[in-house]
Amino acid sequence: MLKDLVTKNRSYRRFYQDVTISTNSLLELIELARLTATGANKQSLKYKLINNSLENEEVFSCLDWAGYLADWEGPEEGEKPSAYIIILNDTRIKQNPNYDVGLACQSILLGAVEKGLGGCMFGSVNREQLRESLTIPVEYDITLVIALGKPKEEVVIADVVNGNIKYWRDDEHIHHVPKRKLENIIL
Amino acid sequence: MLKDLVTKNRSYRRFYQDVTISTNSLLELIELARLTATGANKQSLKYKLINNSLENEEVFSCLDWAGYLADWEGPEEGEKPSAYIIILNDTRIKQNPNYDVGLACQSILLGAVEKGLGGCMFGSVNREQLRESLTIPVEYDITLVIALGKPKEEVVIADVVNGNIKYWRDDEHIHHVPKRKLENIIL
Repeated sequence: MLKDLVTKNRSYRRFYQDVTISTNSLLELIELARLTATGANKQSLKYKLINNSLENEEVFSCLDWAGYLADWEGPEEGEKPSAYIIILNDTRIKQNPNYDVGLACQSILLGAVEKGLGGCMFGSVNREQLRESLTIPVEYDITLVIALGKPKEEVVIADVVNGNIKYWRDDEHIHHVPKRKLENIIL
Repeated sequence: MLKDLVTKNRSYRRFYQDVTISTNSLLELIELARLTATGANKQSLKYKLINNSLENEEVFSCLDWAGYLADWEGPEEGEKPSAYIIILNDTRIKQNPNYDVGLACQSILLGAVEKGLGGCMFGSVNREQLRESLTIPVEYDITLVIALGKPKEEVVIADVVNGNIKYWRDDEHIHHVPKRKLENIIL
């Protein structure tokens, strides 16, 4: 049932790094994105797939991890993502992909959850460094990076208290994500 | 399986208008959006649910249908959507919802397909008229409108030929949507 996938699809930031993800698995996720709607059907998004340890490390070094966890700089060796999908916008087709990126991301991430994987989206990316290290041509805007792996952490949904939406970790490393209640998001 | 939902989740524009959609069904779709990731977990999106014939007509009159079908102005009476979800951004929380709208939309639309419904996203909306007719406060930006109903048309995926991505209808009113091939969207 879709609700199970949506509920399990949390932002995971610690993984079993030794569980690799095949290129074929990544292509199956891109196939989901390919079948997903795009504004005016223009399909300007393109995908760069990364799943070898050398390039994984290059991508990893361009990401800014978990803004609200001030004393955590990202996963340690052994808990890093096993793969990445870099979502590029082909500016020759469309200047601003608008809602297309989010639509594609959700298909990819739900697909990852269905495979027993999990991911995290990164908008906070050192794009200049990433472009240079992976030789991404200038006509492709780097929109988002999705990190993927087999999750090694528990993420639970909590209520928003006093308007505070910052996620936090407890002493047992369980990650809590406050969500606004349904009645508070219906106008 | 998710791929079935993603494949069936096409943009539908003709519906069995007499098949109504309950407020409870719409709330179940918003629950999926509520559980979906948002940038920095800020959750600035809010939702206005429309499923009565008077307001349906008001929303309908604000939408611009199927840009590529020059000789079709939208569904006739009897084939119009039974409900709408208007996705609003609470600008007091976040100025630009970025990828959040697409992420939420995909959850909502996949949920609709699971219920035997289908939808279509509208970015081309007469926002001024919509705001006035539904009395939407100025602090909420109107991002997208999702039209929903029980689909009354067949939508099939085709290959892109000569770079032409415009969808088209054949003599039997089957709607064809050209999609780029997988190998053409991997960098």
